[in-house]
Amino acid sequence: MIKVAICGGSGYTGAELLRILLMHPEVEITAVTSEKSAGKRVTDLFPHLHRYAHLVFEPLNKDELAGKADLFFLALPHAASQEAVDFFYKKGKKVIDLSADYRLADTAVYEEWYKTPHNFKGTLKEAVYGLPELHRERIKKAQLVANPGCYPTGAILGLYPAIKAGIIDTATIIIDSKSGTSGAGRKAETAYAYCEVNEGFKAYAIAAHRHTPEIEQELSTIAGKKLIVNFTPHLLPVDRGIFSTIYVKAAEALDTGDVLKLYNTTYATEQFVNVLEEGVFPNIINVRGSNYCAIGLKVNKRTGTLIIVTAIDNLVKGASGQAVQNMNLVMGFPETTGLESLALFP
Amino acid sequence: MIKVAICGGSGYTGAELLRILLMHPEVEITAVTSEKSAGKRVTDLFPHLHRYAHLVFEPLNKDELAGKADLFFLALPHAASQEAVDFFYKKGKKVIDLSADYRLADTAVYEEWYKTPHNFKGTLKEAVYGLPELHRERIKKAQLVANPGCYPTGAILGLYPAIKAGIIDTATIIIDSKSGTSGAGRKAETAYAYCEVNEGFKAYAIAAHRHTPEIEQELSTIAGKKLIVNFTPHLLPVDRGIFSTIYVKAAEALDTGDVLKLYNTTYATEQFVNVLEEGVFPNIINVRGSNYCAIGLKVNKRTGTLIIVTAIDNLVKGASGQAVQNMNLVMGFPETTGLESLALFP
Amino acid sequence: MIKVAICGGSGYTGAELLRILLMHPEVEITAVTSEKSAGKRVTDLFPHLHRYAHLVFEPLNKDELAGKADLFFLALPHAASQEAVDFFYKKGKKVIDLSADYRLADTAVYEEWYKTPHNFKGTLKEAVYGLPELHRERIKKAQLVANPGCYPTGAILGLYPAIKAGIIDTATIIIDSKSGTSGAGRKAETAYAYCEVNEGFKAYAIAAHRHTPEIEQELSTIAGKKLIVNFTPHLLPVDRGIFSTIYVKAAEALDTGDVLKLYNTTYATEQFVNVLEEGVFPNIINVRGSNYCAIGLKVNKRTGTLIIVTAIDNLVKGASGQAVQNMNLVMGFPETTGLESLALFP
Amino acid sequence: MIKVAICGGSGYTGAELLRILLMHPEVEITAVTSEKSAGKRVTDLFPHLHRYAHLVFEPLNKDELAGKADLFFLALPHAASQEAVDFFYKKGKKVIDLSADYRLADTAVYEEWYKTPHNFKGTLKEAVYGLPELHRERIKKAQLVANPGCYPTGAILGLYPAIKAGIIDTATIIIDSKSGTSGAGRKAETAYAYCEVNEGFKAYAIAAHRHTPEIEQELSTIAGKKLIVNFTPHLLPVDRGIFSTIYVKAAEALDTGDVLKLYNTTYATEQFVNVLEEGVFPNIINVRGSNYCAIGLKVNKRTGTLIIVTAIDNLVKGASGQAVQNMNLVMGFPETTGLESLALFP
Repeated sequence: MIKVAICGGSGYTGAELLRILLMHPEVEITAVTSEKSAGKRVTDLFPHLHRYAHLVFEPLNKDELAGKADLFFLALPHAASQEAVDFFYKKGKKVIDLSADYRLADTAVYEEWYKTPHNFKGTLKEAVYGLPELHRERIKKAQLVANPGCYPTGAILGLYPAIKAGIIDTATIIIDSKSGTSGAGRKAETAYAYCEVNEGFKAYAIAAHRHTPEIEQELSTIAGKKLIVNFTPHLLPVDRGIFSTIYVKAAEALDTGDVLKLYNTTYATEQFVNVLEEGVFPNIINVRGSNYCAIGLKVNKRTGTLIIVTAIDNLVKGASGQAVQNMNLVMGFPETTGLESLALFP
Repeated sequence: MIKVAICGGSGYTGAELLRILLMHPEVEITAVTSEKSAGKRVTDLFPHLHRYAHLVFEPLNKDELAGKADLFFLALPHAASQEAVDFFYKKGKKVIDLSADYRLADTAVYEEWYKTPHNFKGTLKEAVYGLPELHRERIKKAQLVANPGCYPTGAILGLYPAIKAGIIDTATIIIDSKSGTSGAGRKAETAYAYCEVNEGFKAYAIAAHRHTPEIEQELSTIAGKKLIVNFTPHLLPVDRGIFSTIYVKAAEALDTGDVLKLYNTTYATEQFVNVLEEGVFPNIINVRGSNYCAIGLKVNKRTGTLIIVTAIDNLVKGASGQAVQNMNLVMGFPETTGLESLALFP
Repeated sequence: MIKVAICGGSGYTGAELLRILLMHPEVEITAVTSEKSAGKRVTDLFPHLHRYAHLVFEPLNKDELAGKADLFFLALPHAASQEAVDFFYKKGKKVIDLSADYRLADTAVYEEWYKTPHNFKGTLKEAVYGLPELHRERIKKAQLVANPGCYPTGAILGLYPAIKAGIIDTATIIIDSKSGTSGAGRKAETAYAYCEVNEGFKAYAIAAHRHTPEIEQELSTIAGKKLIVNFTPHLLPVDRGIFSTIYVKAAEALDTGDVLKLYNTTYATEQFVNVLEEGVFPNIINVRGSNYCAIGLKVNKRTGTLIIVTAIDNLVKGASGQAVQNMNLVMGFPETTGLESLALFP
Repeated sequence: MIKVAICGGSGYTGAELLRILLMHPEVEITAVTSEKSAGKRVTDLFPHLHRYAHLVFEPLNKDELAGKADLFFLALPHAASQEAVDFFYKKGKKVIDLSADYRLADTAVYEEWYKTPHNFKGTLKEAVYGLPELHRERIKKAQLVANPGCYPTGAILGLYPAIKAGIIDTATIIIDSKSGTSGAGRKAETAYAYCEVNEGFKAYAIAAHRHTPEIEQELSTIAGKKLIVNFTPHLLPVDRGIFSTIYVKAAEALDTGDVLKLYNTTYATEQFVNVLEEGVFPNIINVRGSNYCAIGLKVNKRTGTLIIVTAIDNLVKGASGQAVQNMNLVMGFPETTGLESLALFP
């Protein structure tokens, strides 16, 4: 059993970590922090976590926490995470950071999109981008993992085989994504009030969302050249799920069957990626609560366009589930431990 | 007062016609048909229409109906509408057809996408495509109006000014649309059962939806050359609304403000198109129950892409509201009669 | 045309007043107030109200407002409304108050349940409880109308005929009510965030809700003796609608048909109450956006219980629609003006 | 490992059994039947069950099935289950029947409410009503368990301690229940279509629901005398969850704290019943996907009424989860095996 602490546990990703880790046989939760809710019981905020009856939020006292755990999940707001990550990293702790602070290797890009300086460039160099399907071997050896953003996870997994195989025109990538409302976090804001979201649908942050450079960084690495993409997020009136519809020009005359074969081959040994049969396409309803990414695709022969659609649960494969997957890799546990449950449907 | 009959009144578009027409001062409903529900009261199927207490569904007996009304709304299934339209048309009646049967001028295209022959090519030639913003003057003089499909309405209104002005590369049009579930009609099918749709989101009919040629026909006319488009519909877990996110390459260096000016100018006198201010984007929640189309747009300078987003209520501007708008034009009533109510929010 | 001002227009009931009044031929809106949103356009908060393009929220400057309008709708928070009502009342203005401040005739009861003193007992005496089905003639002559609460409207209309006719045991009334989330107002609170309400259902304020004394006051008046009731509100994951399931012991051997006859007779001339046929029961979906109250009932012969179920739209018959109905009565307009539209379904 | 077959596996309860049993270390699924879907893969109907890639629905060939499994879950329609249960029972198999066919000990009551004869009275005598909190010791020794209905589970657990302790007037029980839509099963019916349920709420089967005699049977046993109850089910626009609001006259002057103490004592050793603290009440959102029943209560001192509220997931504690709990008891496995996961929130 390893001792695990969760810093920033009062949001949905924190609660989801607790939910998942309860079923993990190798983990003992020794601390959960929240500044705002310090002193409250976890069950005061999250009655569904009733089996953590004795767990109480504490403030993020780094020195004290360092003595309590071997591995730290950090679910802190962007920018706020920088220093905490650096602190625990330097104490020799394993760190899985769910913020964006250690995802972008180029601090100039980070500073441009997040409008804040990065003050821990040395530690940043040690971070591995925690998408196991791309960087499994590096993650296994990492002490610090930057857990991917929710949108990037679905987008990158959808594009990886096609870009790697060089079958698409990388100048024309369009990623039209739709996210459940839990992606916005647990916020007391009118914009996320029930009556403002229910029965609605809208685009937001058009041509300006912060996950854009993260997607571009990873796709560029795969392509071996700098890519830019059109990425448009939308808000779905559901709790969970990200659905991405991706449009790319085919570099040559492609056939749906051939592309599916390529995807199946690329992901043959992946436990958490399901490439669907020809004519079958994902629905977020079928991944809700699970760590799986479902992928379907079709070539539009009339327009010469490859259309890839992917679905994940933004709180699981898009956040806390992937964080546990990364922990498993970092600690040498079987990669699927604690993550094998299927989606809750309906 | 004109006498109006609704053929095929037991679906959502039929019910919506009844709801809207109740507030129309120039219209008297004299008959509503339904084969399956013949003999039942309208209120047996639709309790919300309680002010039509004495209206009973009758079978579609064309000869009998011809004596009952001056204008016919046909909300019959595709293919089934062909003959009924022709019949009432030849009887000298005004006809607003909500099916797809008289929308496509080229019967070869119709037959390819709808897999059924078109047997009334003579009458088809008389039909006017009922998008008032494009064809108002022809509609005013028409006896037969082919009411547009829901997806085409939102897509064409979003693209019309840009294509007409020649500011985009028409070879690269991508239309990513999301529709509320009422767009599927009132059906006893597992696929549209509550638990199968709620909390879900999926794409369907990828590269194969029948509204594709309808969109292409109208955009080609605007462009003055044959266009093909990528069109992907998705199913939204809401009752009403279609949201379209449209991506086009800019033909030249465009600025968001300039494009907005163009859109404002193009739609300056349109009562039912709202071009939103820079930085403001539509949400289907704000058009629900109304006949308005809201349009927002932004140029992505990094990628040279113009992103246009439009929102309509699929049952109103996308079907029954637009049908009433067309009736108003055909009959010489003020275009907005019966259609002035704002969206129901929340 | 009368000049109308809305004080406290930035919530859902304010927006709903604006939506309804746009279609009212006798009304001109001359002012809308909001402290928090003063200086903002109405459309900045409510894009669906785009036909009020030039209306701007102003602060509640009572002296200035007094010169602007003949009739005032007050949609201010409880307690805050007391003084404003008194002010406009004393200026000789017609006032429709949507708060609870002038609903309870007994200030001791008000002070017990609202935990705040009532400082305008003289003006309180002039207020008429604005449920037209009970107090129409008094409302017509009133200068100040206390618009009923949403829960009381559905509960009282459901019980009025039975209590008046003396056919039930008034000692055993149980009112189990379920309200859509808009009933909580437009609030930036975590408890009403989308993910906290969606897919959920809960009771709240059990045995402690402030609408209890209001229900008891009106039912006691009908019964001619003091009644107390069990009232339990619940939160429904829908935007609009209140459904009340009411259980009462039958005072004698009752038959469903006989009770329905009584209800039909009692409400025979009411425009906004629909007593449904035997075997038919209401659904909030069928009153959404309309000013109608639908009532169904059944006698459980096994247990000797009369079960009455009622449905209203909490923002319309439960708030703003009823306020307009009261305005119509106060001003001598036809009672249904502006309120005739049917429910938006689906 | 025991071999388990599921008869009637194409509905939501069948799918839920598969979802739960995948995580059960002692179970191997050897057959799943469906008449309508025979020959189809489980994943054709339920893509979320993708880890059952090779499982195919087969027809209910009883003789063949008898050789395939040691324990049978029967999720067949009412009446259809009678014979199949009898068959497997007589073959010496363990049977957990999720239908209503073996729940009512009195066949006259069964025949009155289900309008069909009971042809296996001998086998019926051997059935144990599978509510572990009431009948654990008998279930452990049973070969045939009649798994309780969803509504009865929540209602009986809410009333058991109060009736057993004799603190309420059992002549006045009112159970107002609200169920998620999955309770209606996986049906192609217009009444359960998305747009008919979404944003709606209604009562149904008022004073006539078939779960009434089941509730009365169990409560009568607890009370030691024959009881009748008012039970009203409602349809909630959510996937999962049953919330019951129960009203009973207090037999004596009760205090909320004392009643809570009684409930805590009664359920002290129960793993799946959570009695909440004073002032805290359940929400179906917090039991979704879990086997827990949450109970809150309050005494209304003004009216002398005890109000008990309970929440369960209708597909888990209300059906398939409880069926697995019963299997665990029957087989001698730890009672919580496979059932320990917490609710999925949000």
